[in-house]
Amino acid sequence: MSQSYTQLEKQFKRIHVLGDASSILHWDMAAMMPKGGAESRMEQMALLATLSHSMMCEDRLSDLLDGAEQEGGLTDWQAANLREMRRAHTHATALDEALVEALSRTTSACEQVWREARAEGDFAKVAPQLKEVLNLTRQAAAAKADKLGCSLYDALLDQYEPDGKASEIDPIFEKLEGFLPDFLQTVQDQQKDVTVQMPQGPFAIEKQKELGALFMAALGFDFDHGRLDVSMHPFCSGTADDVRLTTRYDESDFTSALMGVLHETGHALYERGLPQDWRNQPVGQARGMSVHESQSLLVEMQVCRSDAFLTYAHPHMQQTFEGIGAAWSLENMTNLYRQVKPGFIRVDADEVTYPAHVILRYKLERALIEGHMQIEEIPERWNSMMKDMLGVTVENDRDGCLQDIHWYDGAWGYFPTYTLGAMTAAQIFDGIKKAVPDVEGEIAKGNFAPLMGWLRENIHAKGSSLSTKDLLIQATGKPLDPDVFIAHLKGRYSS
Amino acid sequence: MSQSYTQLEKQFKRIHVLGDASSILHWDMAAMMPKGGAESRMEQMALLATLSHSMMCEDRLSDLLDGAEQEGGLTDWQAANLREMRRAHTHATALDEALVEALSRTTSACEQVWREARAEGDFAKVAPQLKEVLNLTRQAAAAKADKLGCSLYDALLDQYEPDGKASEIDPIFEKLEGFLPDFLQTVQDQQKDVTVQMPQGPFAIEKQKELGALFMAALGFDFDHGRLDVSMHPFCSGTADDVRLTTRYDESDFTSALMGVLHETGHALYERGLPQDWRNQPVGQARGMSVHESQSLLVEMQVCRSDAFLTYAHPHMQQTFEGIGAAWSLENMTNLYRQVKPGFIRVDADEVTYPAHVILRYKLERALIEGHMQIEEIPERWNSMMKDMLGVTVENDRDGCLQDIHWYDGAWGYFPTYTLGAMTAAQIFDGIKKAVPDVEGEIAKGNFAPLMGWLRENIHAKGSSLSTKDLLIQATGKPLDPDVFIAHLKGRYSS
Repeated sequence: MSQSYTQLEKQFKRIHVLGDASSILHWDMAAMMPKGGAESRMEQMALLATLSHSMMCEDRLSDLLDGAEQEGGLTDWQAANLREMRRAHTHATALDEALVEALSRTTSACEQVWREARAEGDFAKVAPQLKEVLNLTRQAAAAKADKLGCSLYDALLDQYEPDGKASEIDPIFEKLEGFLPDFLQTVQDQQKDVTVQMPQGPFAIEKQKELGALFMAALGFDFDHGRLDVSMHPFCSGTADDVRLTTRYDESDFTSALMGVLHETGHALYERGLPQDWRNQPVGQARGMSVHESQSLLVEMQVCRSDAFLTYAHPHMQQTFEGIGAAWSLENMTNLYRQVKPGFIRVDADEVTYPAHVILRYKLERALIEGHMQIEEIPERWNSMMKDMLGVTVENDRDGCLQDIHWYDGAWGYFPTYTLGAMTAAQIFDGIKKAVPDVEGEIAKGNFAPLMGWLRENIHAKGSSLSTKDLLIQATGKPLDPDVFIAHLKGRYSS
Repeated sequence: MSQSYTQLEKQFKRIHVLGDASSILHWDMAAMMPKGGAESRMEQMALLATLSHSMMCEDRLSDLLDGAEQEGGLTDWQAANLREMRRAHTHATALDEALVEALSRTTSACEQVWREARAEGDFAKVAPQLKEVLNLTRQAAAAKADKLGCSLYDALLDQYEPDGKASEIDPIFEKLEGFLPDFLQTVQDQQKDVTVQMPQGPFAIEKQKELGALFMAALGFDFDHGRLDVSMHPFCSGTADDVRLTTRYDESDFTSALMGVLHETGHALYERGLPQDWRNQPVGQARGMSVHESQSLLVEMQVCRSDAFLTYAHPHMQQTFEGIGAAWSLENMTNLYRQVKPGFIRVDADEVTYPAHVILRYKLERALIEGHMQIEEIPERWNSMMKDMLGVTVENDRDGCLQDIHWYDGAWGYFPTYTLGAMTAAQIFDGIKKAVPDVEGEIAKGNFAPLMGWLRENIHAKGSSLSTKDLLIQATGKPLDPDVFIAHLKGRYSS
């Protein structure tokens, strides 16, 4: 093995461990920190980001990467690791230290103001901060685009979806845009005569948490290696051996938080299943965000809204909340979890309307990044697109452009990965049903081992050793095919 | 102002912010982290410790310190800051990077094993790890002693009690050792005829937390700048603007956790009151651990067990737990909180027996550091000293040498500061009663502003601008005088 490579592993381990520390501090900021801690936390996050960036930009690293690439003699995993090191290095060295620190500081500040603006439904309150974030993000995009030889938007996308290209996303999203409006109409017409009853609360938060934890454990979540807490915007953070999930509860409706927990559990199981031997190396990390989202959506949408899962889960729901009456029948619960209904909130959206939420954000963020649109125009454009695409009228920006943390937190180029993930999830679950005998029968019995065993082996344990495309080909025999997702929607909602 | 000094401020700010991040991660480790996260957390803590240490050991720092000391032209606060920078630099540069990392890693590992060993009452389980910790601590002590020109033990003490000397502690502790046994006998004889009733539980943890938070807020704790949580070993951590307190609850007895919360609140108020303009600089930090302990013990022992405080607090206790009957009378609650009774647990000890717990640990840790004793001898020596000094027989090491985190966590030389703090607290409160008109009358009404105002001005806001001795002289007119503490004990317990 090359001497340069050995030194690289040591340095990338340090960078990774620093990232783990940041990740815990970030979780704390969202789930635990009192608001008066914001200023000092920003200092901490900014310093760790700066330190990590300087470690990545040490002069000797360029030489070591060149050296290791020339010296060769690596195993497949080491070679893949070196490739991912190079990728991370290219992204990091594109930005100078001042920009990295400014981005960390500005996004932390904006995120804090966003929390208040969202609570008050006051976009104008956070617009100045968001403008600063966009300005710095465009600077970062320009610097990365220059290094990667791509467009501003692709440079941002590449951070979340390695090798992703807007030119490849556009036709896929156009196909969905072509299919979905009529399909939505069809499904809504069919569902018109189905009466769905909401089980009546209040549902004590402790009980909701207990039920969520029960399903998490059944799916394979190990509470010795993770926690479930509360934050305004649900997320999965922490480290592979200490996964921190959050959700938000509503005492009048348990069904939404429950699916939220299951969604984050999909993310968590992916993190936990990453290759143990490569914990602190780039190749040991999740492949990218579309694969990450595929794992959460596979659990939430493909598995947990299936007949099989609901057959298993329904008695537990009834028992936990002592539910009686028609609202608690398996049929009604199934209808409830299959309800297709245009709404305001992305994270609460059903599978059929979800892509519209994503496509809207994708179009707006491209326009903002490419300079075709101003921050001030967001609410109006957002609301008019919601009206056009889903027929709903946003009355309060809290239910519109203030709902998601992403832009305020600096995560531009992230949104398309949700719908790429949804399609990937459909394709993977389709593959599992063909590969694993009676996987749905086992799910109905509450046995998730065959499902999770397959995912561990074919997705999780691969880390970043393969490209997104190769990972999917190896697991399902072909690259991303939107028709599998469309077939899934037709099968579930219009058959 | 000197150019060198300006650069030093910048570097010491970075070091401080890194310490803040570590402090939050440490709080998380004790209060939130699932056990499976221990290994990755150790990596994080060790890395941050190493980074902080390398920042302190950068070659240019020595030159900058020399430069700033020669250039002069500093304000009093800047000069004090420079003095504290030099102190921190001397401590840090005494150790090489490998030793710093080994210490961080080994103490984290030992702390984890200690948590299990303590639960199981199995000292032998953690003895090998503790031996490693002691070995590394003695190496660190030797390196620091060499730089500071002092004994091994003084070098460790100096980390917690700047300029502290065992030779100054010995006569003070000897005075207490001379006074306390007879006094204890006198108090016990007097209390023999006083029947103390324990209020009967169970006391719901939520209620206990609510009552603790009520008193915390009354004393001036700002929940926008801090939290109250649970950990096995209560502590106060976090940052000056985000103070993290922990306690542990017992459903059958609320009185102990309540005083624990008030104790940690004293620490927290000190942290919050440190000079705002010097937040991230050495001079803006707490003076040392005896002053820190004086603030917690001033709140817990001097204030919260006084007639004045109990007059205010007693109706709230009754109301929170809906307490009725003789056990809930003000007289009984006062007797309960003044009970003098030799016991096993330091943190539960009364003011009269507490010094014995500290003197025992002080003697043992000096013997261990000075090489006159082996780790294996701890349980026997501990138990025999407990028998000699307090007349109690330790049956389980959980109630003996496993009760405190300090040695397992690498905090050797820390224990004496508890009793130095108790004496300092007595002297400060004595000073306040003379300086602030009717401070006790105000406390009885639940008005803590006069008390806290004086502390803010005369102790908290001074940060590390004065030596411990000068701080006390400025605040009370004289250096530490154990007779004030003895007079306090006599006044409260035998008059």
